[in-house]
Amino acid sequence: MPRPLELHPDRLFPADPTVRAIARELYGAVKDLPIVSPHGHTDPRWFAYDEPFGNATDLLLVPDHYVFRMLYSQGIALEELGLRNPGVDPRAAWRLFAERYPLFRGTPSRIWLDWVFAEAFGIGVQLSAETSDLYFDTITAALATEAFRPRALFERFNIEVIATTESPLDRLEHHAAIRSSGWQGRVITAYRPDPVIDPDFVDDKGGGFRANLAAFSELTGEDCLSWPGYLAAHRQRRAFFAAMGATSTDHGHPTARTADLSTAEAEALFRKVSAGDFTADDAELFRAQMLTEMAAMSLDDGLVMQIHPGAFRNHNAKVFARFGRDKGADIPSRTEYVQALKPLLDRFGNEKDLSVILFTLDESTYARELAPLAGHYPCLKLGPAWWFHDSPEGMKRFRAMTTETAGFYNTVGFNDDTRAFLSIPARHDLARRIDSGFLAGLVAEHRLEDWEAAELAQDLAYNLAKKAYKL
Amino acid sequence: MPRPLELHPDRLFPADPTVRAIARELYGAVKDLPIVSPHGHTDPRWFAYDEPFGNATDLLLVPDHYVFRMLYSQGIALEELGLRNPGVDPRAAWRLFAERYPLFRGTPSRIWLDWVFAEAFGIGVQLSAETSDLYFDTITAALATEAFRPRALFERFNIEVIATTESPLDRLEHHAAIRSSGWQGRVITAYRPDPVIDPDFVDDKGGGFRANLAAFSELTGEDCLSWPGYLAAHRQRRAFFAAMGATSTDHGHPTARTADLSTAEAEALFRKVSAGDFTADDAELFRAQMLTEMAAMSLDDGLVMQIHPGAFRNHNAKVFARFGRDKGADIPSRTEYVQALKPLLDRFGNEKDLSVILFTLDESTYARELAPLAGHYPCLKLGPAWWFHDSPEGMKRFRAMTTETAGFYNTVGFNDDTRAFLSIPARHDLARRIDSGFLAGLVAEHRLEDWEAAELAQDLAYNLAKKAYKL
Amino acid sequence: MPRPLELHPDRLFPADPTVRAIARELYGAVKDLPIVSPHGHTDPRWFAYDEPFGNATDLLLVPDHYVFRMLYSQGIALEELGLRNPGVDPRAAWRLFAERYPLFRGTPSRIWLDWVFAEAFGIGVQLSAETSDLYFDTITAALATEAFRPRALFERFNIEVIATTESPLDRLEHHAAIRSSGWQGRVITAYRPDPVIDPDFVDDKGGGFRANLAAFSELTGEDCLSWPGYLAAHRQRRAFFAAMGATSTDHGHPTARTADLSTAEAEALFRKVSAGDFTADDAELFRAQMLTEMAAMSLDDGLVMQIHPGAFRNHNAKVFARFGRDKGADIPSRTEYVQALKPLLDRFGNEKDLSVILFTLDESTYARELAPLAGHYPCLKLGPAWWFHDSPEGMKRFRAMTTETAGFYNTVGFNDDTRAFLSIPARHDLARRIDSGFLAGLVAEHRLEDWEAAELAQDLAYNLAKKAYKL
Repeated sequence: MPRPLELHPDRLFPADPTVRAIARELYGAVKDLPIVSPHGHTDPRWFAYDEPFGNATDLLLVPDHYVFRMLYSQGIALEELGLRNPGVDPRAAWRLFAERYPLFRGTPSRIWLDWVFAEAFGIGVQLSAETSDLYFDTITAALATEAFRPRALFERFNIEVIATTESPLDRLEHHAAIRSSGWQGRVITAYRPDPVIDPDFVDDKGGGFRANLAAFSELTGEDCLSWPGYLAAHRQRRAFFAAMGATSTDHGHPTARTADLSTAEAEALFRKVSAGDFTADDAELFRAQMLTEMAAMSLDDGLVMQIHPGAFRNHNAKVFARFGRDKGADIPSRTEYVQALKPLLDRFGNEKDLSVILFTLDESTYARELAPLAGHYPCLKLGPAWWFHDSPEGMKRFRAMTTETAGFYNTVGFNDDTRAFLSIPARHDLARRIDSGFLAGLVAEHRLEDWEAAELAQDLAYNLAKKAYKL
Repeated sequence: MPRPLELHPDRLFPADPTVRAIARELYGAVKDLPIVSPHGHTDPRWFAYDEPFGNATDLLLVPDHYVFRMLYSQGIALEELGLRNPGVDPRAAWRLFAERYPLFRGTPSRIWLDWVFAEAFGIGVQLSAETSDLYFDTITAALATEAFRPRALFERFNIEVIATTESPLDRLEHHAAIRSSGWQGRVITAYRPDPVIDPDFVDDKGGGFRANLAAFSELTGEDCLSWPGYLAAHRQRRAFFAAMGATSTDHGHPTARTADLSTAEAEALFRKVSAGDFTADDAELFRAQMLTEMAAMSLDDGLVMQIHPGAFRNHNAKVFARFGRDKGADIPSRTEYVQALKPLLDRFGNEKDLSVILFTLDESTYARELAPLAGHYPCLKLGPAWWFHDSPEGMKRFRAMTTETAGFYNTVGFNDDTRAFLSIPARHDLARRIDSGFLAGLVAEHRLEDWEAAELAQDLAYNLAKKAYKL
Repeated sequence: MPRPLELHPDRLFPADPTVRAIARELYGAVKDLPIVSPHGHTDPRWFAYDEPFGNATDLLLVPDHYVFRMLYSQGIALEELGLRNPGVDPRAAWRLFAERYPLFRGTPSRIWLDWVFAEAFGIGVQLSAETSDLYFDTITAALATEAFRPRALFERFNIEVIATTESPLDRLEHHAAIRSSGWQGRVITAYRPDPVIDPDFVDDKGGGFRANLAAFSELTGEDCLSWPGYLAAHRQRRAFFAAMGATSTDHGHPTARTADLSTAEAEALFRKVSAGDFTADDAELFRAQMLTEMAAMSLDDGLVMQIHPGAFRNHNAKVFARFGRDKGADIPSRTEYVQALKPLLDRFGNEKDLSVILFTLDESTYARELAPLAGHYPCLKLGPAWWFHDSPEGMKRFRAMTTETAGFYNTVGFNDDTRAFLSIPARHDLARRIDSGFLAGLVAEHRLEDWEAAELAQDLAYNLAKKAYKL
């Protein structure tokens, strides 16, 4: 007999009855608020062309690095799951996953997936070897229906606005198609210039920074091998992205280092990196300088700046060579902010009209560096618990370690940061539940009034994201 | 209608009814113990001359960097609050604060301030835009009365002893005035030699290390440009401070680094730094050497040594240039202790008659470095959760991460470390509540007997501070 | 009147009644499972010759660095406790401990010791100055009885298997004696090659790496001053250890650094370190290279590899000079894994047949580095909370910070890692209670089903250790 799958209405709330009752009430008032998703990685083609998603494996397994990294860690080859292996039987791949579903006990993937199974697909039994085919068939059949087309899900999920992320080299034709389609869903882009900023950038096809500069020139008509032309190309593309709805930029550097070189120094450095004749230190310094350049442009064009540092990308050389980027082999590294951000902050830190949102994969910086910085500098805000820390315990640590110094109002609400479209409501729901529980704890300990917690619950679930991202 | 302001008798206790009941009982037995404040930054002039404090803004807003840093982070200029701007209308400044009081939700400042409002001033409504003038008027009027003079508050607050912090260059005339006044309040000093130890020291008036050495010579009659004279001057001033009640020294270096140079090396290094011809490494090494020299003197004169490392002072260059030190722009940095302290510990670590109290702004060192060090070396003790971590969650993390390795008896009770005089009872009350809750949790989980917790509550609230600081 | 000593049946369970009830049930089903102890430091002579343990002080005080480091930190000389001082009166030494038993409040030593007193010896009153002699006499008398011989305790403690740790230079004669004795207890060894791998190794008798290489040659008949001979000697001893039951190796390097040099480079480096003519960097690089060599051998012979980095050994120079190694003066250091392990992982990270268990003394790496690494690489697993973190709060932090990214199944159950034989059941019991409480919290918050928690409780208490260590 398969075990029943039921999402408990009190899931993720603290166990103490007093706290739980408060949490339940706080959550009740925010659970149906529209979803504001200011940072993520959904594919604009979905919303532009509204085609069906395919089968269960292609939708839920192959693209989800949270899922296949865990299976890989326990000895399942990525090929067996269908990565870079179109010949695999998707039903067989799904079975490998279903049999190993206990591996996800205690992980947020389990919580998100159970929501997708129960709420999105209405499945009433737990995923296991026994129910593997039932799942595969139910999900695959549902995906063929109109109700599971991207736009229908977007509306059903009550998404008010969602941001995707594109390279400056992207022509945003899918975003243009959405806009010209007449569909009312608000899908915006965000400016992610790493491919034309990071001298060490390599994409899955072996392309890299220099090829990207050539494409950048071609796209913009600027001479992107000259420093002024390169900066002008950024300004031009930022304006175009903004015209296509972007309100933010995003920067995924290895570190948070910034620099503030003279024009002559910056120009000389650019000559080296653009010529492909540079050291690792040159590359790091160039990335550092470009954060400050981007901040300068943000002061002009109003785009909110997001800094997402600290991932050692593609740590597994063999997996990268065989499968490319984003295959679950990015590993967080110790990250320093206090020295790293000083050059940018010395120049722009006191600007009220600049907004820089800091993220981290190094939780030891929450209380030590990030909350003190954001609790002082007018331009700084803290992004939510990110990636490996986008989880119940991760969110609780984020709140416990940042609130006392930075308060709630130097944070920016929730980011789902995902390409797993169906899990978006689950992720926002999880964040709303955890925040409600955190606030309920403060109320129960008489550290916050109940009416304040109610205001905060709305702010954390909805208002702060809209305000911080100018949505 | 303004909302009522009421301090709940169970505030800050854990929500679980069993744990809360135990916490309430533990706290009940210690809440009225006298306040021992062995480390802080109150102004001895208050107690020497007992003059009224002025208005609400001048007392509670302008000097409190916890408060104005948060307002600054949300776009309020420091000038608008009255910093370096005597022309500001204090009532208008107070209103800026009152309107933004929600920014402090979830912060310890909110807890301390509500105590001050409700307990010290007897205000019964919450601070908000609506009650801003009521607050300003009520507080300002109260401050004009005898009951709110510094000595009256000292007595009302049941302060058994309070330590201030002075530079070796301070003549301690205000402390002398207190002693000769006949008033019985015990206000002592502490020896804080950074201005004459740190080659990089700069004060708000542009003065620095070399000018301070000249003043040090003049004050002591020693030749403070010679290494023996410089050390003799320290010894002389330490003796004078001790005669004025000091039982401790305090050292706020950027790092915890110590050194144990030969006399010849130390002398050569001193020549460089005192001549103003030194590198950053020289300055760091000199500070390191001086910690060891101070430890040597402590072995002789019995002064307890406090090491407060890890703040990047004056991180915001523009705020420092305009407003000077201590303006909420000090940011913690990663701090290392194991290598850093070894030279000092190799020389004095096994001395039972030396007492060195370690503080940190880097919580990642609690369980990893500080508790293991303090749980082994006879000379080491751990100071309480400090500054950004002087908060409910900060204190809970301190206990949770140090107790299992260092125990309770290698810690030293609570420090309020504040210049916000009216908040001192609130801060000690908060610490007593959090410690009672922590102990109650251990009792409820049968990790500690109730009678042991009762002893510990007394120790943490009172006995340990007296013993560790020889008060 | 002495206070009664009673171990509460609900000790260490969360206070909330709902969670506690779930924890009690989970624990009830696993509390009597046999003990699997795959990593520790008991003495094989105990089981080989089954002689009585001596008196209370010699058994419980003199060898337990957790205990005497705390006493030392509070001013008790190690000589007074009997370390390197056979002339001390053991009853007087015990009294020093008994009088200071309150120092251990809140520490795991207190919990382990109370279990030993109450459960192993049946003592019904608390340890204190008053009961010191009663304790000393009761324990010492019991130790003279048959029931307290090592083998009898082994059986009474329901130990299914226990691993000791030996140097490659150890002839394993005591293990051979156990095997030839006819006694059925399963005591196995583990291969701990630090003495012949670490160029900086110094033992208590002043011996070191070069002397150990000579002994290694003599023992194996290989030329251990040649690189091929040295590696062959390792292979030979590993095979011998495996024949004596070993299923694992153990590596206690200062850092987690690995290297993957060419054979020529490795050979040249070995010439330097084996000649005693090397820098600190050479030594570090050699240790790094040897981790990769050991991994290569593990792929061949199947021994599970344990990496225990991050202790600054013998930090207290005077204590080391007077008392030698393992005297409570090892201090954890910040430890980096992501860069450090890359050379080994680049070569072997994707091998399903290799098993590398990572430990840390730096909890900041749990969520940031270790869980992401173990949640991706097939060869990696996470060892339990270790040493200073082998404690209720330490275990809770381990689970809270690793589970969401690595899951439970990339962890390996509990290690007691102790030489304090009588505390072994107490340590496993503590781990089972804390894990039950952690799982109960997940169930109460509807993050895990009750039947899943029951499976996991068995896995964490028993199955995972057997599987991970191939026992």
